[in-house]
Amino acid sequence: MVAEYAGDRLPDYQMSAWLMAALLRGLDGEELAALTEAMLHSGRVLDLGGIVGAKEDKHSTGGVGDSTSLIIAPAAAACGLKVPMVSGRGLGHTGGTLDKLESIPGFNVHLSPAQIVRQLETIGVAMAGQSEDIAPADKRLYALRDVTGTVESPALICASIMSKKLAEGIDALVLDVKTGSGAFMKSEADARHLAELMVQTGERMGKKMAALITDMDQPLGYAIGNAMEVRECMDVLEGGGPEDLVKLSAVLTAWMLLLAGKVGSVEEGEAEFRRVISDGSAMRKFEELVKVQGGDVAAMPQAQHADDVVAVKSGVVNRIECERMGVASVVLGGGRATKEEVVDPAVGIFLHKKVGDAVTRGEALCTVYYNDARRAEIAMEMIASTYTIEEQAPAPRPLIFDVIRSGANAIHG
Amino acid sequence: MVAEYAGDRLPDYQMSAWLMAALLRGLDGEELAALTEAMLHSGRVLDLGGIVGAKEDKHSTGGVGDSTSLIIAPAAAACGLKVPMVSGRGLGHTGGTLDKLESIPGFNVHLSPAQIVRQLETIGVAMAGQSEDIAPADKRLYALRDVTGTVESPALICASIMSKKLAEGIDALVLDVKTGSGAFMKSEADARHLAELMVQTGERMGKKMAALITDMDQPLGYAIGNAMEVRECMDVLEGGGPEDLVKLSAVLTAWMLLLAGKVGSVEEGEAEFRRVISDGSAMRKFEELVKVQGGDVAAMPQAQHADDVVAVKSGVVNRIECERMGVASVVLGGGRATKEEVVDPAVGIFLHKKVGDAVTRGEALCTVYYNDARRAEIAMEMIASTYTIEEQAPAPRPLIFDVIRSGANAIHG
Repeated sequence: MVAEYAGDRLPDYQMSAWLMAALLRGLDGEELAALTEAMLHSGRVLDLGGIVGAKEDKHSTGGVGDSTSLIIAPAAAACGLKVPMVSGRGLGHTGGTLDKLESIPGFNVHLSPAQIVRQLETIGVAMAGQSEDIAPADKRLYALRDVTGTVESPALICASIMSKKLAEGIDALVLDVKTGSGAFMKSEADARHLAELMVQTGERMGKKMAALITDMDQPLGYAIGNAMEVRECMDVLEGGGPEDLVKLSAVLTAWMLLLAGKVGSVEEGEAEFRRVISDGSAMRKFEELVKVQGGDVAAMPQAQHADDVVAVKSGVVNRIECERMGVASVVLGGGRATKEEVVDPAVGIFLHKKVGDAVTRGEALCTVYYNDARRAEIAMEMIASTYTIEEQAPAPRPLIFDVIRSGANAIHG
Repeated sequence: MVAEYAGDRLPDYQMSAWLMAALLRGLDGEELAALTEAMLHSGRVLDLGGIVGAKEDKHSTGGVGDSTSLIIAPAAAACGLKVPMVSGRGLGHTGGTLDKLESIPGFNVHLSPAQIVRQLETIGVAMAGQSEDIAPADKRLYALRDVTGTVESPALICASIMSKKLAEGIDALVLDVKTGSGAFMKSEADARHLAELMVQTGERMGKKMAALITDMDQPLGYAIGNAMEVRECMDVLEGGGPEDLVKLSAVLTAWMLLLAGKVGSVEEGEAEFRRVISDGSAMRKFEELVKVQGGDVAAMPQAQHADDVVAVKSGVVNRIECERMGVASVVLGGGRATKEEVVDPAVGIFLHKKVGDAVTRGEALCTVYYNDARRAEIAMEMIASTYTIEEQAPAPRPLIFDVIRSGANAIHG
């Protein structure tokens, strides 16, 4: 069916009826794996057969300030994994790894399959954009889902993500499934369901899988904005950076190492992550990667203006409405409202206060970096309304809710 | 939505996704009435405001040998109702009233709205085909349902039937919802569900409604075939005819009279039906109708050849696989396998044995009337396999299973 549709031999009106049936009835494990397999093979699959070592990747369902990819890819490579990371652009209120990479002047994300293979052989990591011939059926199906109210189907989301990720030719995949006000899956139950579908589908297709359900009820780290997030990632790679961003990057990397059998536990994996940070090997890997792909971090742009959003009362930050914060960064020019818009890599938001932090009236909650005063005005008004300040501290919320695996996953220690 | 679709401003792929959602989720009463109303008003609605008296019709979901319309329309008119009956052609294995009427040479089924109104004023009954401007949205939606696996939705079937029937401008409608091996709804539960949807939808639209769940596990009457069924109806109108056909026609007419407030009970209504049969007024109404619409029953065609299908063993007829019997009559030429085929009005099957009848080996089960020996050969082989003969008589099956009404239906007595 997928081949017929991709080949223009099945009309849209039949495919859309099927998509609606898939949304309303769901797909069973076998159907979902078959759909994913068919979408995967509608295009080119990277052949990494000649690469020695565990080929792995990490995928996030998307969030605000979520720049773990830029930390994990070099860190995992520094630990000996081969990481052929193919990423997408920002979608809606969420950022995209590709947009972040392109904020590094000169950084080339258009790698050919041969270039990816060569780079994995030489430095063990490549970060690229999705080429036109990766899962073309997914592009057509997504466009049809977009106009038929069938985007939100967990099964179709699963097939879309997995078909693109498995086209990288990897052996194992660690998923970061976000939940909370800044995630596509607002509820933990929805995130868990999607995570289970993806883990099961990947395993049916012979891949080692793990999915972490993680918090996106407030932005991750302090920086939101393409160049600003790259700088924050470099802080982490140099041993600094925000605690939540460091922790999540460490745990995701640890799971990649665990699936590869390079460590025997998540704790060992986290220790390995800390080692490649503290001995500088992760940062050196990042520098190698940027150099090979032609980038120059010294030339990264900075916004011309900065203004603070201040607290209108004293208290404790109880909530940051995270999707609204993401939309505000799009309004600033850091993302796209339409496909055609050009991203301003320099602009963004730097949070001084996150959930649980005490704040005094008039104190800066965050600083907005901008190049266009009109956009900044709208964004700052939005940002002010994302913060909820109360007298009492909120109930704490975990960074990592759960890890989804299945029994089929033997851990090699 | 219906108007946008009928006006080519809503693409097929969005409509088909919605159709699939309607199939899988169903529609609630309000949604279904709104859909029916929109489909109804996509075309012309007959204005019978100037006609004095109760305007009523009967609709059957289709069966084999089901010619009650040709009895009920003149009988109800003879009882004083106004009957603007608009019918369709045969569909699949089932016969169509329009095909039966056209087996009467000269009978004109193409009546204009003005002709229908005039005929209701003069003789109280008109029998016509559906013109192009009746519920055009239904035609387009049906074509899309046909290619998207959404034909079987009870809600969409209901909207399709009701939008066409209510375009007749009637006050009340009696539905004959068939169940059994020759019906579209094989199970009684499915028939009941469709009946309830149609009754509720009609009532929401301000119509008086009743639906009878009736048997179509074997053909109704003895005759299957267009001209043969017309002759059988004339037998009934003259006081003879098969018991089941007479009984069902009487009860359906009785319900029409009950909804119109012309009688106080179904029994009274049946008595009224028997009166217009025995005093000859129903037959005279039929003759008037045929004459006004240009038909000549004396010129009705007869098939050139006849052959018997005989019993291969003695016993009791336990079952006649009714859909297969209907297909056999289509094979003979009495119906259409494709829209373009021309119907042979003369051919058909006359049953000598029905369920419960004792039969001796070699005795005729039925006679096949045909004009094409090659078609007859195939049909007779099919017909032989429709009969199941056992030693024991089968459990009796009612002719009428139930009557579906709702509390909203006040009976005027």
